[in-house]
Amino acid sequence: MSNSLDKDLRDRALQVVPGGMWGHMNAKNLPDGYPQFFARSQGTKLWDVDGNEYIDFMCSWGPMILGYHNAEVDEAALTQLRQGDIMNGPGEVMVRLAEVFVDTVPHADWVQFEKNGTDATTTAVTIARAGTGRRKILVAKGAYHGAVPWCSPSLVGVTAEDRAHVLTFDYNNVESLQRTVAEAGKDVAGIIASAFKHDYGVDQELPTPEFARAARAAADAADAALIIDDVRAGFRLNLGGSWEHLGVRPDLSAWSKAIANGYPLAAVTGANRFRAAAESLFSTGSFWCGAQPMAAAEATLNILRRGDAVAHMEKMGAMLREGLASLSKTYDIAVRQTGPVQMPMVLFNDDAAGRKGFAFCSATIKAGIYFHPLHNMFLSAAHTPDDITRALEAAEKGFLAVRALSSKAA
Amino acid sequence: MSNSLDKDLRDRALQVVPGGMWGHMNAKNLPDGYPQFFARSQGTKLWDVDGNEYIDFMCSWGPMILGYHNAEVDEAALTQLRQGDIMNGPGEVMVRLAEVFVDTVPHADWVQFEKNGTDATTTAVTIARAGTGRRKILVAKGAYHGAVPWCSPSLVGVTAEDRAHVLTFDYNNVESLQRTVAEAGKDVAGIIASAFKHDYGVDQELPTPEFARAARAAADAADAALIIDDVRAGFRLNLGGSWEHLGVRPDLSAWSKAIANGYPLAAVTGANRFRAAAESLFSTGSFWCGAQPMAAAEATLNILRRGDAVAHMEKMGAMLREGLASLSKTYDIAVRQTGPVQMPMVLFNDDAAGRKGFAFCSATIKAGIYFHPLHNMFLSAAHTPDDITRALEAAEKGFLAVRALSSKAA
Repeated sequence: MSNSLDKDLRDRALQVVPGGMWGHMNAKNLPDGYPQFFARSQGTKLWDVDGNEYIDFMCSWGPMILGYHNAEVDEAALTQLRQGDIMNGPGEVMVRLAEVFVDTVPHADWVQFEKNGTDATTTAVTIARAGTGRRKILVAKGAYHGAVPWCSPSLVGVTAEDRAHVLTFDYNNVESLQRTVAEAGKDVAGIIASAFKHDYGVDQELPTPEFARAARAAADAADAALIIDDVRAGFRLNLGGSWEHLGVRPDLSAWSKAIANGYPLAAVTGANRFRAAAESLFSTGSFWCGAQPMAAAEATLNILRRGDAVAHMEKMGAMLREGLASLSKTYDIAVRQTGPVQMPMVLFNDDAAGRKGFAFCSATIKAGIYFHPLHNMFLSAAHTPDDITRALEAAEKGFLAVRALSSKAA
Repeated sequence: MSNSLDKDLRDRALQVVPGGMWGHMNAKNLPDGYPQFFARSQGTKLWDVDGNEYIDFMCSWGPMILGYHNAEVDEAALTQLRQGDIMNGPGEVMVRLAEVFVDTVPHADWVQFEKNGTDATTTAVTIARAGTGRRKILVAKGAYHGAVPWCSPSLVGVTAEDRAHVLTFDYNNVESLQRTVAEAGKDVAGIIASAFKHDYGVDQELPTPEFARAARAAADAADAALIIDDVRAGFRLNLGGSWEHLGVRPDLSAWSKAIANGYPLAAVTGANRFRAAAESLFSTGSFWCGAQPMAAAEATLNILRRGDAVAHMEKMGAMLREGLASLSKTYDIAVRQTGPVQMPMVLFNDDAAGRKGFAFCSATIKAGIYFHPLHNMFLSAAHTPDDITRALEAAEKGFLAVRALSSKAA
């Protein structure tokens, strides 16, 4: 397994990019053996610049819900691109996409398209403030809603005023939520919650029905907006929105990642109650009317609506989870698998320093399986039973590597 | 000139998009006759959904610096797309693009890629705060630096705290700038200035050498960052940055719009002094590593570097400006043409209500020329003398329409 081209590119990148790479895709945060640079993608597979092949369980950190280079999506995107992408206004595709989006998501009476997940969460929060005339935004501790000063997981370059009206509560803790609402008094503009608790490096938690209902009731009592951040989970759990199965509908929701199968697009949707507020905002970007990503999104949504993608991802995710649980027993190495099966999080017991997770992933990446040791992973509709079988074969090497760690420690 | 399909789409959009359209591309802000929806683009031409053809002087509000569907850019983008766009990390193209960017822009020792112009300005400001440990950002009154709470031209949904550390000065006014720096005391993190004054609906102003030097000196004296917002003007005035000809180099600069000839990309660049600060930030987005727009940007930059695009845009812009000035004399209707010729702003004297500008543009759009009555326009390297000749023929109808207004008023 060569990595010489990757190493050369990292050296060159260090000269012209701060730290060689920014943000969540920086491979320096990953175990030994992970590539930084990729050359090619197809289906569930990625090839790095040195030609190493991987079955990918990150799906570009979410976007690839139908697999890389889905033929129908790419054809729609290319057909639109050949006609026109960015022009002095949107293409007809904007209207068609908005119609299918609103038809798919029951709480959405309207939608606006943007580029980043952060655009969508920021716009949702701003709409909540505009619509209520109030200021406080309630956010779960540790939740990721984007990488700008009001919500970034880092406080570098952030002023106290950027967070002046952000209050935090514990996800899935009704009492904590209600206490925080009380603390905000008459100034609650909105409560924002992720589709489920999918914070970095900790066990995932699906929302309890009690928590979801309490969040809805608290927003109603305060005449504030309930906002679901479905940027990461959107369309993987439920095409109608990730809280739809709970019978709890938000006033506003934020989407991105998977909605265009990898083409850059985000969306903020909402109920009619916040339509005028959304219209009153000046929210815009140079590329937000680009027609190529919208055509890709229309094709993606049409495929998802007519197929059984969610059921298939659940099936593949369950197969992976059961296989890992079985190997965990065989090797007597305890793991915690949490959250929805199609967005797997695998953490090792007694592994505060992450040594086990890193040893595991270092072994699996060398066996051609791209797992993540600390972030939730993603299944796609393109994953096959054979992909899962091969992943479990690699996982066996991972468990052996973890056992070797323990032997060394002993 | 039919607009029935456009009208139908506007009606449908009103159902599913707040106000039928968001932001700067909302055609409701334009004179009668402007289409909202576009079907096709090629070179300097756009076709709306009803099949009407326009010679475009907005270039999608800036991005199309080489014209729509430049063959070399599209081929580079498609070749990269076929290999891989968004993956679990960037492609090799990120390094090549960063190298050519840094080689092209003398003040840039490093670069990071993003999606929106607002991403770039926001990151630049956050880097300035991170690097200085201070908070105040000095911004010219009326300048556009993006559409999020810290800088949006609208205060809807914005809290006082969002602007707590934003102080304003008058562009090109040394005394005003120095007074504002003094007001910020020891807390100046950065001074941000647009490439030139290109505010909406008012005369444009190139920076005076005195102002540029004073901004540099003020930033140095305060040990703060001088930030140039080159999002709108970048690569149209000077490939090395819009203040390069003044001999004044910023510490940080923000780019977007034209850098990938319409593919969605933004960049923040800076000097080594702020490299560690840039590295210390957590700044990221799901699609920021997408390789397709980077391949387009690499091709765009290579074309710009080997050709005479800036000189050509200046020549075409001068031809348009001289032609309009001549018509203005012929019809005895005074106009003010301000700013760089390749980013024309045309405003009528004694036209506070904008009636003359609207009448003018309403006539030109019907003659197949897409001008803007209140925003600066954009030339591209694809504009030809024939395009300008046809624009001036349409402008003649525009002046006649303005004269007709005066007759009505008289």
